[in-house]
Amino acid sequence: MPVSAPDDVRGGRGSARSRVLVLGGGFGGAYAAMALERRAARGVPLEVALVNRENYLVFQPMLAEVLAGDVGMLDTVTPLRQLLPRTELFVREVSGIDLERRVVTLDAGLGSRALELRYDQLVLALGAVTDFRGVPGLPEHALPFKTLADAVRIRNHVIDALEQASVARERELRSALLTFVIAGGGFSGTEAAAALGDFVRAAARTYSSLPAEEIRVVLVHSGGHVLERELTGALARYSTATLAEHGIELLLRTRLVAASPRHAVLSDGTRIATRTLISTVPSSPNPVLERLGLAHVGGRLRCEPTLALAGRERVWALGDCAHVPMPGGEPCPATAQHAIRQARLLAANLAAVLAGAPARPFSYAGRGKLGALGHRRAVAELPGGVCLAGVSAWLLWRGVYWSKLPGRARKTRVLLSWLGDAMLPPHPVQLKLGGGRGASHAHYEPGETVFEQGDDGDCLYMIVAGEVEVLRRVDDALELVRTLGPGEYFGELALLERRPRSAGARARSSLDLLVLPAGDFAALAGGLSEFREAFEAIAHARTQADAARAARPS
Amino acid sequence: MPVSAPDDVRGGRGSARSRVLVLGGGFGGAYAAMALERRAARGVPLEVALVNRENYLVFQPMLAEVLAGDVGMLDTVTPLRQLLPRTELFVREVSGIDLERRVVTLDAGLGSRALELRYDQLVLALGAVTDFRGVPGLPEHALPFKTLADAVRIRNHVIDALEQASVARERELRSALLTFVIAGGGFSGTEAAAALGDFVRAAARTYSSLPAEEIRVVLVHSGGHVLERELTGALARYSTATLAEHGIELLLRTRLVAASPRHAVLSDGTRIATRTLISTVPSSPNPVLERLGLAHVGGRLRCEPTLALAGRERVWALGDCAHVPMPGGEPCPATAQHAIRQARLLAANLAAVLAGAPARPFSYAGRGKLGALGHRRAVAELPGGVCLAGVSAWLLWRGVYWSKLPGRARKTRVLLSWLGDAMLPPHPVQLKLGGGRGASHAHYEPGETVFEQGDDGDCLYMIVAGEVEVLRRVDDALELVRTLGPGEYFGELALLERRPRSAGARARSSLDLLVLPAGDFAALAGGLSEFREAFEAIAHARTQADAARAARPS
Repeated sequence: MPVSAPDDVRGGRGSARSRVLVLGGGFGGAYAAMALERRAARGVPLEVALVNRENYLVFQPMLAEVLAGDVGMLDTVTPLRQLLPRTELFVREVSGIDLERRVVTLDAGLGSRALELRYDQLVLALGAVTDFRGVPGLPEHALPFKTLADAVRIRNHVIDALEQASVARERELRSALLTFVIAGGGFSGTEAAAALGDFVRAAARTYSSLPAEEIRVVLVHSGGHVLERELTGALARYSTATLAEHGIELLLRTRLVAASPRHAVLSDGTRIATRTLISTVPSSPNPVLERLGLAHVGGRLRCEPTLALAGRERVWALGDCAHVPMPGGEPCPATAQHAIRQARLLAANLAAVLAGAPARPFSYAGRGKLGALGHRRAVAELPGGVCLAGVSAWLLWRGVYWSKLPGRARKTRVLLSWLGDAMLPPHPVQLKLGGGRGASHAHYEPGETVFEQGDDGDCLYMIVAGEVEVLRRVDDALELVRTLGPGEYFGELALLERRPRSAGARARSSLDLLVLPAGDFAALAGGLSEFREAFEAIAHARTQADAARAARPS
Repeated sequence: MPVSAPDDVRGGRGSARSRVLVLGGGFGGAYAAMALERRAARGVPLEVALVNRENYLVFQPMLAEVLAGDVGMLDTVTPLRQLLPRTELFVREVSGIDLERRVVTLDAGLGSRALELRYDQLVLALGAVTDFRGVPGLPEHALPFKTLADAVRIRNHVIDALEQASVARERELRSALLTFVIAGGGFSGTEAAAALGDFVRAAARTYSSLPAEEIRVVLVHSGGHVLERELTGALARYSTATLAEHGIELLLRTRLVAASPRHAVLSDGTRIATRTLISTVPSSPNPVLERLGLAHVGGRLRCEPTLALAGRERVWALGDCAHVPMPGGEPCPATAQHAIRQARLLAANLAAVLAGAPARPFSYAGRGKLGALGHRRAVAELPGGVCLAGVSAWLLWRGVYWSKLPGRARKTRVLLSWLGDAMLPPHPVQLKLGGGRGASHAHYEPGETVFEQGDDGDCLYMIVAGEVEVLRRVDDALELVRTLGPGEYFGELALLERRPRSAGARARSSLDLLVLPAGDFAALAGGLSEFREAFEAIAHARTQADAARAARPS
């Protein structure tokens, strides 16, 4: 961990005002800083600083609309500086927290040094992160759907798949390109599936060569109905039926158990051939918080009902990363409306503690639940047991979320977007930002093809775990050339000689690979002579062995 | 080059209709396909296919508005399928052209095989590409400004620089972050400088801690006035004065001669400390065309006045990649308005040739020239010698370009964006799509610092050319630890042991490096045991040598 010289440290302890440092700029963190700013304006002796990876607050409930293109990419975000004019904002990654020294370390960013921030009071609002560990292939091959970048990335990927499908001749490839699998039937997965279904079918109409009947949007869910944990039985059934009616294929009482570049593998053994797998399920605490080793419940930091961290002074937590017991004993749900109420209480309690007054416990019943189902349909569960479904609920859904958008500018932008969208045809364009891919990992299930003889060779593979069979076609039969295991490489020949794959590769077992793209291979081979020579030697030895075998009378 | 099996080949020669294949979807290619579609609808026996990297046409003249945020990222693009309902569209990269076999090869995309397309008539409209070769450090450290992705990338980078500057304490770092250098005083560079100046100063007002007076927007231009090649003397002088008045620093009669991660180096020897260098100058033909070895003039394919490629049958070219002689002998300028007129003539001539009729030569006088200068100012040179400057020219600029936007949907979107922008505060948010960086190259000028002792270590360096001095601070003096040359590595210790740089590194000469980011280093070291062992051995030997030297009585 980099250590700055003392003069590098911001924020003094000499000042009479307490320095409150908020980590995270989601609903919890941003609204806490707003509430603290208001307290400071009313004379509470505190100053606020906030650290966030982006310089904006994302309006998460509308991410599915970004995916579908109903609102523009940046319409759902609000610059944090506009919300927090009196807060010092650090747009950086948090790399470490030292609760003993009361110091938070930020990474170097465009500068070259890490930054240390001292605090008097610390507010943890770092949310949850998508965590695909535990399901083989998920970290490598599933697209998460949690952040704005995720939504844009999924949209770009889906358009790419439609483009490729429109010129693919092999039926097998085309149908894999036109199959979109979403795992998880909670709010996020249901909304993603509904939005994706609407978008894909509307976009496909602009492709004359795409057979609409080959499009499959599949939602995989472990329960018997979608949203059954979130809503009443009747609304969950209505939601399930509505999705099915609009052509979403529902695979219920099923789980995703593995993923590869070509398949989604389900708990009943089915392998769905797809190039687009979106997973909304597992989420886990931010790794920075995990490293602190604090008490937690189901991955969320254990808090007092006052939002103070259990057993720690000067530290508070709220939002998705906090486990806050409610008056009835059950934990506070991880929703935006609860985070916003927690933020107000947190500012009040922090001010109370500074003044030596007692802190109050959190209590909020919630104003209801809303979920969009595509095709201008939604479901709503309101206080007092009132339930709405269909177009009326969809209008309520848009109205409520629109009214919650922070700031007048944001409201106007979203309104203009909706207006444009109601009037204009769908707009399936991608923004390819390009940039190097770098080394990555890949997972294959037993029997899956890594590449086929004759394929374009654009990667070098190194085996991390498992075994690979190298196969060559001889007179219409596949001949096993060699079997490779952990630590061995393959695919180097196509990169060294720039030609199609001279043999195919198939996973013999569950297989984990390190994948180095051709561009990086060329850069490393150009810069590091040992690197190039090592691969040339392997390639030479293999070519010799193959020639010897071919010469042998069979 | 991958070769598909015959059944992989699209487009038959048996058909009575000629298959016209258009490469490129800019103004030249897209409008040629549109004109060809119209001919086909009127009974000319041809069918059209078009290949483009993106599925949209970018309205280039408005890219500076994207940079400034006056229009949304995707407002300036139109889906090619909406423009070309009867054209077969391939969204792929062209990887090769075989004029003898009349076959174009496309890369594999999301599929695994290259695709071969046969043609009867080929239309080359691949434009020009940014080519930074020839100026040391430019390919590695300058941002090009040519495509939509370039504009978005520059915008994101500039916002990042503002964010980092707002929390930077060292004055030197802050002023480098707040210095924005643009090279090239043609239309593109002038518009980029004007738009960037407007945007940076407006955005900076939302950062309370940014000293506005430290912001520098510098335009480097080899001539005595900006736009002097493009416009009359009076307008060029007006443009130069207007930019200066609005705070653009003009460095005239000066060229960019080198770039490094920290500096722009000018022909008079000045080094400007900056983290943002935009170069609009050199452009060259598409590498795919370069490989064909055809006759060219100044990098543009030599064409007949009829747009037929000189000395080749069945091949045509237009737009920025084509050198088309005009009636007066001078070449046709590379502008959108000329490309659009060429497109119409090309379709007419191609139909004429198919019918055995003679082709006509290209002739178009141009309707005038327009350039935006920021602050709602522009310059215009109209036919008949009429010149406009200032707000009236700016209104004309917006009006003309708006009327040229293809399709009603596009016009509406841009109008909504302008409306939103006139009403709403600036919106400096970035879209960080993340993704791996991969290996890259870096260039340093003699005496420049690569990193300092104590910096965060996030890369491994390999020397491609030049020498590096490794320096360690001993009692306030810098001690030379060792000098490294081509083929040697440095910076590995910080990555192996995850700690700040234990020594600094400085370029002893002009220096070219291969840079491997920590993430890729970790992946390679994890996957390839030899890789890790090699670096551990180097690190061990160096640590031993250092310990031995330290123990030596001095």
